Amino acid sequence: MELTESNRAFGGTQQVWRHESRTLGCAMNVAVYVPPHAEGARLPVIYWLSGLTCTEQNFITKAGAQRYAAEQGVVLVAPDTSPRGGDVADDPAYDLGKGAGFYLNATQAPWSPHYRMYDYIVEELPALIEAHFPVDDRRGITGHSMGGHGALVIALRNPGRYKAVSAFAPIVAPSQVPWGRKAFAAYLGENEAEWAAYDATALLGGARERLPILIDQGDADDFLEKQLKPEIFEAEAARVGHPLELRMQPGYGHSYYFIASFIGDHIAHHAKALNPKP
Amino acid sequence: MELTESNRAFGGTQQVWRHESRTLGCAMNVAVYVPPHAEGARLPVIYWLSGLTCTEQNFITKAGAQRYAAEQGVVLVAPDTSPRGGDVADDPAYDLGKGAGFYLNATQAPWSPHYRMYDYIVEELPALIEAHFPVDDRRGITGHSMGGHGALVIALRNPGRYKAVSAFAPIVAPSQVPWGRKAFAAYLGENEAEWAAYDATALLGGARERLPILIDQGDADDFLEKQLKPEIFEAEAARVGHPLELRMQPGYGHSYYFIASFIGDHIAHHAKALNPKP
Repeated sequence: MELTESNRAFGGTQQVWRHESRTLGCAMNVAVYVPPHAEGARLPVIYWLSGLTCTEQNFITKAGAQRYAAEQGVVLVAPDTSPRGGDVADDPAYDLGKGAGFYLNATQAPWSPHYRMYDYIVEELPALIEAHFPVDDRRGITGHSMGGHGALVIALRNPGRYKAVSAFAPIVAPSQVPWGRKAFAAYLGENEAEWAAYDATALLGGARERLPILIDQGDADDFLEKQLKPEIFEAEAARVGHPLELRMQPGYGHSYYFIASFIGDHIAHHAKALNPKP
Repeated sequence: MELTESNRAFGGTQQVWRHESRTLGCAMNVAVYVPPHAEGARLPVIYWLSGLTCTEQNFITKAGAQRYAAEQGVVLVAPDTSPRGGDVADDPAYDLGKGAGFYLNATQAPWSPHYRMYDYIVEELPALIEAHFPVDDRRGITGHSMGGHGALVIALRNPGRYKAVSAFAPIVAPSQVPWGRKAFAAYLGENEAEWAAYDATALLGGARERLPILIDQGDADDFLEKQLKPEIFEAEAARVGHPLELRMQPGYGHSYYFIASFIGDHIAHHAKALNPKP
């Protein structure tokens, strides 16, 4: 792993590392914030999955999360949103290809050789983080928009692996909205039965663990009615008895101003479950 | 004034406005954060002056200041760092021309027609803000690097106009460092006697008001030894008896991670003097 950025922040250190991912077959940047901590301490870690068009930079420069991570004693890990590099397939649209990995393992050409963000986030990245940073296996996962979709799907499919989950303005029903249908058709093919494995609403009924979910959603979000549709997820959670707190935030949009306003609540939600004070 | 961006943040509203500046002879963007407040209330306002290469965006997206402004009940105003537009003189270097207005009134060609950021910040901008937003004449001023220079110079030259002043990693002695010498020679000419009006260290002795100054400076700042030299200002403040709290922050650099880590302290410093709870 190569250290490419390091900045003191809130008494801890915000770094960016570059590593060769065997899962993705390319070099990846990952941002890691380590809060102030006692020598030798092992801390819990929250994974942040970003939305469409983002890199590892958006969250660490705009969310203001380091303050809360320092207060709560949790490590924050923010990976990039897709494989990168010259031989990685891409598309000119912002919602397919680079910057739009959708946290799945692609099965279709030309995407399948590199687009394996599901395995990267679930397996390779935690192993890397747990080997190189002062953390243990207490993990939480959260994210924004496409990254909220990723956090919900990954938590629901991996019972016992995460102690807390939350999301900001997530794509909760990708099989039913344009962003998801376009990406899933390209990455997974036209057989919609294959899509359910990456659709939080479709996964909810069969979840083997009822980990409580916190979702914040701005009611002035431009993508609310067409792409996000939290009411679909809310109805399914009620139907199957999955604990969900969906907070509609009046006047808030889809930007990092929304995330910054509520990231403190989410980090507190995770910290409570992660029990960060050893 | 034309509203170009509006986002709910921390219960208030982060907006960007565009207006035709008669001082600068061009259209300018200015960011304004209005915190939650009682109907009809008039709030104090803190002016933030950004550093080299910045626009009105850097501070509002990266500093995390809105949380503290909401808590303290103060308005934040973040202007651009130079005139802009097709007929405004520029230079390919990052430290001269657009993005590098140095908060002075240029006297030399080709800069003098538009580069009048001193008058813009001291006169036109406050008049505009006080006419259009729920503020009164309780003003504070702060900024970063070139903007810290601007905040110090403007507060020192305008006794009674600001109730609080502070700076992050300011250029405290521009006449004595490369950034300042290059800019002053271009904008003000080779007669160094003209430079003293825009040099905080040179102004300190003659200040007619001893407004306490708070400065934070990272000791791992790459520009510390060559461009910033806070020890020059500290020695002059001690010599003339000007109240200065200079905090050297161990391990911090010049970036917005440094600003974000201490902006809460600066807003509290201003709020105490501005008495924001009416």
